[in-house]
Amino acid sequence: MNIDMIRAAHGRIADHVRRTPLLSSPFLDDLAGRRVWIKPECLQHTGSFKYRGARSAVSALTDEQRARGVIAFSSGNHAQGVALAARQMGSTAVIIMPADAPRMKIDNTRVLGAEVVLYDRAAGEDRDAIGAELSEARGLTLIRPFDEPQVIAGQGTAGLEIAEQAADAGIGRADVIVCCGGGGFASGIALAFEAQAPGLRVRPCEPEHFDDMTRSLAAGHPCRNAAPSGSLCDAIVTPVPGQITLPILQRLAGPGIVVTDDEALHAMALAFSRLKLVAEPGGAVALAAALFHHDTIDGDDVIVTISGGNVDADVFQTALSRYAA
Amino acid sequence: MNIDMIRAAHGRIADHVRRTPLLSSPFLDDLAGRRVWIKPECLQHTGSFKYRGARSAVSALTDEQRARGVIAFSSGNHAQGVALAARQMGSTAVIIMPADAPRMKIDNTRVLGAEVVLYDRAAGEDRDAIGAELSEARGLTLIRPFDEPQVIAGQGTAGLEIAEQAADAGIGRADVIVCCGGGGFASGIALAFEAQAPGLRVRPCEPEHFDDMTRSLAAGHPCRNAAPSGSLCDAIVTPVPGQITLPILQRLAGPGIVVTDDEALHAMALAFSRLKLVAEPGGAVALAAALFHHDTIDGDDVIVTISGGNVDADVFQTALSRYAA
Repeated sequence: MNIDMIRAAHGRIADHVRRTPLLSSPFLDDLAGRRVWIKPECLQHTGSFKYRGARSAVSALTDEQRARGVIAFSSGNHAQGVALAARQMGSTAVIIMPADAPRMKIDNTRVLGAEVVLYDRAAGEDRDAIGAELSEARGLTLIRPFDEPQVIAGQGTAGLEIAEQAADAGIGRADVIVCCGGGGFASGIALAFEAQAPGLRVRPCEPEHFDDMTRSLAAGHPCRNAAPSGSLCDAIVTPVPGQITLPILQRLAGPGIVVTDDEALHAMALAFSRLKLVAEPGGAVALAAALFHHDTIDGDDVIVTISGGNVDADVFQTALSRYAA
Repeated sequence: MNIDMIRAAHGRIADHVRRTPLLSSPFLDDLAGRRVWIKPECLQHTGSFKYRGARSAVSALTDEQRARGVIAFSSGNHAQGVALAARQMGSTAVIIMPADAPRMKIDNTRVLGAEVVLYDRAAGEDRDAIGAELSEARGLTLIRPFDEPQVIAGQGTAGLEIAEQAADAGIGRADVIVCCGGGGFASGIALAFEAQAPGLRVRPCEPEHFDDMTRSLAAGHPCRNAAPSGSLCDAIVTPVPGQITLPILQRLAGPGIVVTDDEALHAMALAFSRLKLVAEPGGAVALAAALFHHDTIDGDDVIVTISGGNVDADVFQTALSRYAA
C-alpha cells in the first residue's frame, strides 16, 4: 500500500469521480476560532466518498472477475458505491447489508442495480458466513469496505485533491480531520499527504463509544468497540481498525478526536444553514470536532471532510429541530 | 448590456466567486425522463448566485464611491451578496429589507457587516422613499438587484461557466431552466449563451401567481403581478420584469415555466435526498420544472439552476415532512 497505488487509482477513476470543491463560511470560522475548510464528499456520486474506493477496486479487476461479479458487506455507503461502480463497468454486485441500516441506503443500493441480502446484526447472524457461501457458489470477488489496498487507493484520491486545493488556498500546515470507521478514508488521505503535502496531518474522528481507532492509536495496538452498533453515526461504526489501515495511521496520523452524537447533529444543522449541504451524522463528526473541540487542534486553518450525506429525513429533521437557530 | 461586460465582470470576480460544479443524479434522470444537470448556486458564497452580481457591481465602482458606501433593497439574497462584497472590498453597505423576509436572511445580512433598515411591505411603506433619503444624506451608491448592467454582468458569469461545463459534458443543445425574479440571473445567462453556447436556451421559471416574466414574454409587453408578496418562493418575487432584463429575454429566451409552491417543496426534498443540497423554495423552482413539467421541455438533456439555499429550518422541515420518501 503506497502512493503509487493512489496515483494509479487516480488515473483510472479521475474521469468518473467528482472533484469536490473546498468550501468555507465566515460563520463557521467565527465558531471555530480559525479558518475552517470543508471537503464535501457528500457531493460525491452516491452521496459519499465510498464511490472513490469502489470505482478504484472494480476498475482494478480483470474482465473475467468483473464478468463473474462482486460482493460487498456494508451498512450502506460502501454498498451504494460498489453497486454504482459495478453497474457502470458492466459487472453485477451482491451486497450484504444489516437489516437495520438506514432505509434510504438499502433502497438506493437496490435501485442502483445491486442484489441486496439483509442480515440481522443485533441477533448475531454471521454476515461473513452468508457472504462466503454466496461468493463460493457464484465465484464473486469480495470488495472489502476498508481493509483492501485498491479501496484505500481510491479513497486516497480525495487526499490528492485536498493537497492541491490546500496549496491553492495557501495552506501549508493544518490538521485535516477525517471521519473514520475502519480507517480506509483516513489512511488513504494520510498516504497522499505524506507524498504530496507533508504539512497536512490527518486526525481521525469517531463517535463516542465507537472510538476503536482513537483508542488503538493511543494504545499502540488494536482495540475493539464494546458494542457492534448503537450510534446515530452508522456509516462509521466498525468493530475494530483494519489490519492495513491501523499501521498506516500509527505512522502518519495525529491523535484521534471523539465527538458525541449530539455534536454530530449540531454540526449537521450548521452544515445546513452555513454550507447548504446535507451531511449524515457519521459524515458530520469531523466538522463537529472542528467546531466543538477546537482546543485539541493546532494552527490557523483546519480542514474537515464531510464524508457522506445519506441520511433519512427523520434524522435530519431531528438535527434541525434541536440545533437550527 | 453585452457579452463584453460579462467577460469583464468575469475578469474582476473569477478569483473571488466559487466556480460551482455541474451535478447530476440517476434518480433525478429517471424522474425527469431525460438527463438532468444541476448548477448549484446555493453553494456560492452567501448561499446564492447574488454574490456574483454584487461583487461585480461593487468592484466596478470608483474608490471614492466605495469609500462613501453602497445601498441596496432586497428581501435577502441580494442583501447578503452586497453586504459581503462591500465588506470584502473595504466599503460599507446599507440594506433596506422587508420586515417579513426570512429571519435567516436578515440575521446573516447583519452579521456580514451591513446596516439593515427594515420596512413593512404589507403596510405599504415606501422603500424607495426610505432609500432615497438615506442615499442623499450619505452619498451612497444604489446597487439595484437586477435592473443594473454590472449586476446582470456578474450573474452572467454563471452562464459562462455553464457554457463550458455543458461543452465538457457533451451537451450541445438543451433548455436551461433559470429561477427568475426580476430576470437578472436569466438575462445574464442568456447573453453568455448567445456568445458562447448558442445551442443552450434559457427558460425562465417562476412561482404560481408571481409569473410576471412568463406572462410578459407571452404578451410581448411588461405585465405586473397582482400581489406584492405571498409566495414561499420569496427570493424570486418581484412586481414586474426589469426594463433592461425583459428585452434581453424577449430576444433570447424560450417560454417561461410556472410551478406551484408545493412542486418547489417537492423539488427541495429531492435535492435533499438525491443531491445532498439545501435549496430554498425560490431556488428549487427550476428543478421542479424539470421534474414535474417535463412535457414542456425539449431534448435529451436539461440544465437547471438551484439559485439559492437560504431557507429557514421550519420551511425545510415542511418540505421533508411532505415529500421525503
